[in-house]
Amino acid sequence: MKELPIGFIDSGFGGLTVVKQSLKQLPNESIIYLGDSARAPYGPRSLQEVKRYIWQMTNFLREKGIKMLVIACNTGTAAALEEIRATLAIPVVGVIHSGCRTAIKNTTGGHVGVIGTQGTINSNMYKEVMLEKADTLDITSIACPEFVELVESQNIETDEAFDIINHRLEPLKEAKVDSLVLGCTHYPLLIDKIQQVMGPEVTLIDSGVETINEVSTLLDYFSLSRTAEEAALTPATQAIYTTGNASEFEIFAREWLKQPELKVQECDIKGEIIVDRHDS
Amino acid sequence: MKELPIGFIDSGFGGLTVVKQSLKQLPNESIIYLGDSARAPYGPRSLQEVKRYIWQMTNFLREKGIKMLVIACNTGTAAALEEIRATLAIPVVGVIHSGCRTAIKNTTGGHVGVIGTQGTINSNMYKEVMLEKADTLDITSIACPEFVELVESQNIETDEAFDIINHRLEPLKEAKVDSLVLGCTHYPLLIDKIQQVMGPEVTLIDSGVETINEVSTLLDYFSLSRTAEEAALTPATQAIYTTGNASEFEIFAREWLKQPELKVQECDIKGEIIVDRHDS
Repeated sequence: MKELPIGFIDSGFGGLTVVKQSLKQLPNESIIYLGDSARAPYGPRSLQEVKRYIWQMTNFLREKGIKMLVIACNTGTAAALEEIRATLAIPVVGVIHSGCRTAIKNTTGGHVGVIGTQGTINSNMYKEVMLEKADTLDITSIACPEFVELVESQNIETDEAFDIINHRLEPLKEAKVDSLVLGCTHYPLLIDKIQQVMGPEVTLIDSGVETINEVSTLLDYFSLSRTAEEAALTPATQAIYTTGNASEFEIFAREWLKQPELKVQECDIKGEIIVDRHDS
Repeated sequence: MKELPIGFIDSGFGGLTVVKQSLKQLPNESIIYLGDSARAPYGPRSLQEVKRYIWQMTNFLREKGIKMLVIACNTGTAAALEEIRATLAIPVVGVIHSGCRTAIKNTTGGHVGVIGTQGTINSNMYKEVMLEKADTLDITSIACPEFVELVESQNIETDEAFDIINHRLEPLKEAKVDSLVLGCTHYPLLIDKIQQVMGPEVTLIDSGVETINEVSTLLDYFSLSRTAEEAALTPATQAIYTTGNASEFEIFAREWLKQPELKVQECDIKGEIIVDRHDS
C-alpha cells in the first residue's frame, strides 16, 4: 500500500501547483496526476456535472492504484469531496478546508477575501466552512471566471491579462481584505500579478501549499509515508495524464515542475461510472 | 460525539503549552487536561513505565468522555503513541511527527537540533522519524534533564537557570544547527531564554503550535469540529486535573492560560489499567 502513488485530479493544469508542493515537501512519494483539460474549465459547469467528472477521474486513478486521493481542484472539492470521502476506503483530501484553516490563523483584522471559479463561489463552501469556525469573520468572495482560461491558455504575461486581474480584484481592495485565499489551484500561477494588484501587505494563501501540509499529516497519521530508504531502493515516480492534448500539457508540466524529461499521456475517461452511489 | 472535549495528557504542566494553542486556534472546542505532576518528570523513567502511566491517564479521560486524545508529552508519545492509536477508536495525536515535519520544512541548511528529556532522546524517535523522511539531514539531539524541573519548580527567571540552559545548549551552537525542535512540551515556557542562547537566526519549533495544526486537520478530516454556532449555544468548557497539588497547578494554569477563574481538580489515577493489551 505504502508503495502506491498519491493520486491528484484537477480540471486541467491547475492541480500541478499542488503536485509541485508535493514533489518539494514529500520527495519520497510517487504521484499520479490526471488533468481533465478536454472539459476544462469546470467553473461554469453545474456542481452535479462536475461531480460526475470527478467520479470518472477518481475511478481512472483507482484502477491504476493509489493510496490517497487529492481532489486538487476547488470546484471539484465543493462538488464531490464529501461523497467521495464517504465512499472510498483510502484517505481523500480536498483543497478547501486547509485554505480556510490557514486564512483563520493568518488574518490580522478578520477581513478575508476568497477568489475562485463561478462554481466554487456559487457553492459558498469557503464562506460556510470559515464562518462555521469563526463567525465574526468578514468575508468577501469574488468569482474570477477568466482566470482559469488565462492560465490554461498560458496567456499570463500580457497587459490584457493584468487588466483583467486588476479589474476583478477591485472589490477586494475596496473591502480592505488583509488575507486572500486563492480558492482555485490555477491561481498560484498568477500569484505575482495578484500580489502586485493587492499590495504587499495582503497575505495570499496558496491552497496547494496548505493541502500538502494536510496530505503530509494524513500520510503520517495512517502510516502511509514512504521512507527515504524505500525511495532510495525504489525511486519515486511521476505519471501525468490528460484528457486533452498531451504535447501542450507536457510543455507546461515540464516547465512548471522543472522536469524536462517528464512524459504526459493522453487518456479517455468518459466511460461508465464504476462506483457512484448517488448519481443516476 | 462532536460535543465531547479533546483530551490532553502530560507528565505535568508542559502540555498546557499545547492547550494554550488549542484555546487560541480552536476556540469552539472544549478541552479536558490531565497532568501527572505527582509522578513528573517522566524523562528519567523507563519507556515501559511511562507507557503504563500514559495508559492510566488515557483511561481516566476515556471514562470522562473525549472525542480525540492528544498525548501532549514527548516522552509519552515516544513510549505509547503507536499502541494507544492502534487500540482506541478515537483519533490519537502525539507531539513528535508534527515537530519533525515542521523541522524538515523549515531547515535552511539541513542542520537540525532536537532537545528533549532523557527518555525522549534515548527513544531516538525524533531522529528516526526525521531521517525516515529526509536521510541527508544532519541531526544533533541533546537531552536536557534539568529543563522540566526548572519549569515545574517555576524557577525560570534566575541566573542559575540561564546558566543551565546556556551550558546544555552549547553542543547545538557548536553544531551550528539552523532549526531547533523543542522536543518537550515544557520547553516553550523557556523559549525566550533558549532563543537568547541560540541566537535570533535559529528557528525554534514549538511542538505545541504544530500539534494543534494536526489536531485541527484531523478534526476536519473526521468531521469532529464544533461550529461557532454550536459553541454559541453550548459554550466550550475547560476542565483541568492533576495528580499533584491542585492549588499549585491552579496558580500556574491560570496565569499561563490567562483564565483567572480556572479551577484545577486533584485526582487519583493509580487504579487498574482497563485496556492494555501489551503490558502484564
